[in-house]
Amino acid sequence: MTTEISPQQQEVEEKLVETVVASFDACEDPRLKEVMVSLTRHLHAFIRDVRLTEDEWSAAIRFLTEAGHITDDVRQEFILLSDTLGASMQTININNEAYADATEATVFGPFFVEDSPAIELGGDMAFGAPGEPCWVTGTVTGTDGKPLAGARIEVWEADEDGLYDVQRDAGSRAARAHLFTDAEGGYRFWGLTPTPYPIPDDGPVGKMLTAVGRSPLRASHLHFMVTHEGCRTLVTHIFPEGDPIGWEDTVFGVKESLIKRFEQQPAGTPTPDGRVIEGTWSTVRFDIVLAPSGV
Amino acid sequence: MTTEISPQQQEVEEKLVETVVASFDACEDPRLKEVMVSLTRHLHAFIRDVRLTEDEWSAAIRFLTEAGHITDDVRQEFILLSDTLGASMQTININNEAYADATEATVFGPFFVEDSPAIELGGDMAFGAPGEPCWVTGTVTGTDGKPLAGARIEVWEADEDGLYDVQRDAGSRAARAHLFTDAEGGYRFWGLTPTPYPIPDDGPVGKMLTAVGRSPLRASHLHFMVTHEGCRTLVTHIFPEGDPIGWEDTVFGVKESLIKRFEQQPAGTPTPDGRVIEGTWSTVRFDIVLAPSGV
Ligand SMILES: [Fe+2]
Ligand SMILES: [Fe+2]
Repeated sequence: MTTEISPQQQEVEEKLVETVVASFDACEDPRLKEVMVSLTRHLHAFIRDVRLTEDEWSAAIRFLTEAGHITDDVRQEFILLSDTLGASMQTININNEAYADATEATVFGPFFVEDSPAIELGGDMAFGAPGEPCWVTGTVTGTDGKPLAGARIEVWEADEDGLYDVQRDAGSRAARAHLFTDAEGGYRFWGLTPTPYPIPDDGPVGKMLTAVGRSPLRASHLHFMVTHEGCRTLVTHIFPEGDPIGWEDTVFGVKESLIKRFEQQPAGTPTPDGRVIEGTWSTVRFDIVLAPSGV
Repeated sequence: MTTEISPQQQEVEEKLVETVVASFDACEDPRLKEVMVSLTRHLHAFIRDVRLTEDEWSAAIRFLTEAGHITDDVRQEFILLSDTLGASMQTININNEAYADATEATVFGPFFVEDSPAIELGGDMAFGAPGEPCWVTGTVTGTDGKPLAGARIEVWEADEDGLYDVQRDAGSRAARAHLFTDAEGGYRFWGLTPTPYPIPDDGPVGKMLTAVGRSPLRASHLHFMVTHEGCRTLVTHIFPEGDPIGWEDTVFGVKESLIKRFEQQPAGTPTPDGRVIEGTWSTVRFDIVLAPSGV
């Protein structure tokens, strides 16, 4: 689209970019200045590259307004927007560079809450949420291979209807919990076998996905956030091998190293802890390696 | 900031950009696809250039959320954001290229309303809004020099307290009106001498301006929107010569050709239409030239 723009017109457009950039000259915070100047240059480059029409500008203002109006304490349309444009995943990439054999990070998503219930090792984080039970075990170690005792593990996931607890009722807490590793860095708990679910798609982001021919479905996943003193906080998921969505994940969160084998057990198979389960259950192992903090 | 990024890390980041770009492959609307792909590339380039931190990403989400929540029918924070980043003015530049001696366009601003009162030629658009009276006259012609009879002129401005009618009360209509040119393309009306005013700065955009050391003040101006069949719609302002804000306009709207001499008349000076005015009044001439439509 950059054909046939006269030198005079180019000059008018470039002069405006420099004027806006210069408006940040008095900013006393050098980092804020750097971010605003870069934002200005890239925003103007986008507008000029596509030769944005006034109708398109108005549509963008309407889109942002609708996103703002649908956003509340439990629905975050701007995170969905960032996620579906890959901006969230890119920010995660930048801030979680590969380090030795540390477990890779992926998107945080909009459904974490601060006040998850505590469970004991071997406890059940489903709290009645519907889905196939899944026995999750593993260890948390440092990149030096030493076990990390007392690491805090937050886990959360959607139920088999594709809904998080807070989507059913802002106050309910199910299919989420936190627990701590034992003296050997081990952990184990009952969760749910993850299933694909759509990101909330009844708002402007959903309309955008429809307009561009994209699915709102996320690859099946189980969220983890793992913290331990002296270690870089890990925010990640695990993804079942053979998932029907897989790499088509609408928020671009899938990484090869995070795909795990969830082994389904026939109905009646005894569980490791003698639990009585009707129907099938699955099991997965996820060994977590934390990078040192500050890398 | 782009020092010391390993080739492996560059590859991870670039691969994500291409994956997000490819997610728009199925889009059936070629223009929408072009816009989304360009938006993706520029957004990721920004995030990678500044090495956006996770805290900065969260601050951006909070900023957009607050902007959404303060936006309603009469307050439009996303337009203020676009205006203060020069994005509005750049869009105006792109869509209103210089054409012959056609009057230049500038930003629309967030305070236009559809249902302004009609006034006769020579009427008063102030409707009681406080400020120094200003007699505004001129002509509307095409770029061929021919007068345009019946051109619709919408005019609106802030009062001397720096407020638009809708900021005082969403339903009130003052310091705004529309009128039509006479058979010779002439127009005349009473308005108010423009004074500087701050854009609404009690929201996130105001906080951003404070943080970067910028003033929220707009250069004094009187808004015009002029329409006539067969002509490109003109959205513009006029700015008083010698204005204290002038080029420091926080939305980058000032253009040399739109600065006009507002001549203040001593108290008691007879008005062109025999009106009795206590105190001073001013007068300005603004001859408007419309480009043909489709240029
Ligand atoms: Fe999720
Ligand atoms: Fe204005």
